[in-house]
Amino acid sequence: MTNAIDRRRCVALLAGGAMSSAMSGTIFTSARAAAAAEPRIDAARLQATLEQLSTYGRRAGGSFADGVSRVAYSDADVAGRAYVMGLMREAGLAPRIDAAGNISGTRAGSDPSLKPIVIGSHIDSVPGGGNFDGQLGSMAAIEAVRVLNEHHLATRHPLEVTLWSNEEGGPIGSSAVVEAIPAELLERRFNGVPMREGLLKIGGDPDHLARARRAPHSLHCYLELHIEQGGILEKAGIAIGVVDGIVSIDEYDVEVKGFANHAGTTPMGERHDALLAAAKVVEAVREIATRAPGRQVGTVGRFEVFPNAPNVIPGLVKLSVEFRDLSAETIAGLGAETAARLQQIARETGTEISMVRAVHDDPALADARIQRQIEAAAATLDLKTMHMQSGAGHDAQNLAKLAPMGMIFIPSIGGISHSPKELSRWPDCANGADVLLRTVLRVDRSDLQPVA
Amino acid sequence: MTNAIDRRRCVALLAGGAMSSAMSGTIFTSARAAAAAEPRIDAARLQATLEQLSTYGRRAGGSFADGVSRVAYSDADVAGRAYVMGLMREAGLAPRIDAAGNISGTRAGSDPSLKPIVIGSHIDSVPGGGNFDGQLGSMAAIEAVRVLNEHHLATRHPLEVTLWSNEEGGPIGSSAVVEAIPAELLERRFNGVPMREGLLKIGGDPDHLARARRAPHSLHCYLELHIEQGGILEKAGIAIGVVDGIVSIDEYDVEVKGFANHAGTTPMGERHDALLAAAKVVEAVREIATRAPGRQVGTVGRFEVFPNAPNVIPGLVKLSVEFRDLSAETIAGLGAETAARLQQIARETGTEISMVRAVHDDPALADARIQRQIEAAAATLDLKTMHMQSGAGHDAQNLAKLAPMGMIFIPSIGGISHSPKELSRWPDCANGADVLLRTVLRVDRSDLQPVA
Repeated sequence: MTNAIDRRRCVALLAGGAMSSAMSGTIFTSARAAAAAEPRIDAARLQATLEQLSTYGRRAGGSFADGVSRVAYSDADVAGRAYVMGLMREAGLAPRIDAAGNISGTRAGSDPSLKPIVIGSHIDSVPGGGNFDGQLGSMAAIEAVRVLNEHHLATRHPLEVTLWSNEEGGPIGSSAVVEAIPAELLERRFNGVPMREGLLKIGGDPDHLARARRAPHSLHCYLELHIEQGGILEKAGIAIGVVDGIVSIDEYDVEVKGFANHAGTTPMGERHDALLAAAKVVEAVREIATRAPGRQVGTVGRFEVFPNAPNVIPGLVKLSVEFRDLSAETIAGLGAETAARLQQIARETGTEISMVRAVHDDPALADARIQRQIEAAAATLDLKTMHMQSGAGHDAQNLAKLAPMGMIFIPSIGGISHSPKELSRWPDCANGADVLLRTVLRVDRSDLQPVA
Repeated sequence: MTNAIDRRRCVALLAGGAMSSAMSGTIFTSARAAAAAEPRIDAARLQATLEQLSTYGRRAGGSFADGVSRVAYSDADVAGRAYVMGLMREAGLAPRIDAAGNISGTRAGSDPSLKPIVIGSHIDSVPGGGNFDGQLGSMAAIEAVRVLNEHHLATRHPLEVTLWSNEEGGPIGSSAVVEAIPAELLERRFNGVPMREGLLKIGGDPDHLARARRAPHSLHCYLELHIEQGGILEKAGIAIGVVDGIVSIDEYDVEVKGFANHAGTTPMGERHDALLAAAKVVEAVREIATRAPGRQVGTVGRFEVFPNAPNVIPGLVKLSVEFRDLSAETIAGLGAETAARLQQIARETGTEISMVRAVHDDPALADARIQRQIEAAAATLDLKTMHMQSGAGHDAQNLAKLAPMGMIFIPSIGGISHSPKELSRWPDCANGADVLLRTVLRVDRSDLQPVA
């Protein structure tokens, strides 16, 4: 019976609009009325937990504005993890640590046959990072459970909060649940510590990493709230980003070989200047990435010049070229176009240019049904939404391999992230947490089984 | 009487052409006939001394083709200096070491009232250098004295051979004879050793560096034979370069400030990409240096990108811009044009660009009368000459502050220098040494007193 009602509500929710009173059954007369009755998160408490979390990894004598360095496996990470596990315990989540160091706690659902809804993010940061990246989604997930507890609201599905380990260094923790981690990775140093030691330090079990693996289709869905880390939402004046997916990335290693020679004795016409050629590569990447409309981006971020002396014409430049877009085909095309252009530049400048793909990440698409429920949840709060891609990687891209995935973005002031200047407004944080909670309630009543 | 004859010959030589038999007095009937009677250097001996010198600073088990690392103040430098001092002693030059570590030896002239003609170069090398830079001019100077000894030819002026210390690191030794060396320079490390220690190691006297100073007009002239270190002579098929002067250098420190941001989350239109702006700077320097005809060169050799990670839009680029030309006015104009262009690039790219002059070297012009005598000397050997500027610095640029200066260049194969691949053909080396010797004989009979 419950199921039948839920199925009907689910249909209405998937339609994304107001449901008819005929379909809503006995509980609600309209989606708006239903929403008004839904609980809200405690914005002050959410802020307080984020502020307290920011003290783990804060420089001595610093303030919230100084951001955090809570790099995975550091003492600050251990301290921050102890704090959030305490919060989870208070929320009845009985946290456990898997072999990969991921912290999980589950609130039971009313139907023991159903798979868990997983919500979460990460609390590790880059060195010199901000207080919101990963942390907002983590604290909002715990806050959602607290609110459900306080309102004595049962979900059908178990609700699992998972805080993934070492997102910034991989992501490592969320990768370990979907794929085998190569043994040599465990011996590699991260932040000065072999990964194996780091995992032991945070309670993981590097010798049995496979125990962290989870089976495909073993989750109902995965939801993650995150700051945008870009400036699109703020600029558009929109509170909630509905993520279409996490972009595909192609990163290339490019080497420009000229001939190093004396800057004083080599006439301009006799030069094979690797830096001049590499400058043309930088401009070409910009031009190729912007020629067609779309959200694709192209970046040269790493750029090293040899021998790098004022009085020597550079003989070698090593640089990275990176393209990102939700469509792997689009960036493959940009890469091919770049490769052709580089040969043209090599001919024009008397240099040799090689280009080798070093990294390829598949795109991770969000589930369209979850996207519609995020929109519906936002609508109950009168929050404007827009669809966008995530240009940054997230744990969600791993979870998308196991289950339908959805991500909610809120504005980042100035689009700044991975910096102490990373900032999101508290009301925006609260909006994001509310949308997360209301999306949980909606997906709990949805049938998200694979359509294929 | 001798003076009167000399004066007449000098006039003829300054005219740069064949002299009339009426003017040549009793000794020669024509310049060509006179030249035929002039001595030649011993090409095999010159080669042998250069080959022997190349063993000091050669890697264990290496050969001549491996070049040398005879960095100033190193054990290899000390050993090489001992070898050349031995050669000087054999040539009757009684070498002495001044406070700056310069090695000098003098062959007396017939007229004790005359100032010395100074010839020389340096024997220190860059790390991983070649066997010709500085070394050819040094060995040719000693060879010239040997030939004069063997032919019992007296010069009117004393003939001084000086091998300057630490040319590659400054030049230091030749600077000390024309200007005060700042005390702090002595404490600075060079090749891992404080300069003070280095000077002591090679027999200098760092506490009395001023004793190395020489008064303006205390020399008759300074002559230096050197490899071109560029590819102009080889390409033109010309044996002898008559140096017009050593270029003026303006080196600027340029900083391009953009805004470092996430390469995935920052749309192309929202970027302040310091590397894109810096790439345009590199192209602008090239364009500005090549727009007008002339021998000026412009180089961006140092180029550092921050934070230099594939997934971060560069926020800062620090780079050098260097212009060289014989005319200080020309390069000042190129610098001004660059400064204006940089502001335009800053506006177009949403960055801030600063440009500060870090180094200025005045040009050092060769003496036109000496140039004509180099041409005359080459003509006696049927060697083609061309005028050229020296784009590289040399000890001669310091000596030009004291006395009329002349430099003779010979071809560098492939224009390669400061490399084990640095190479000049032995016949070209011998030609250069012959021209040096015959120029000495000509300037010895010239009145090079300041014309102003």
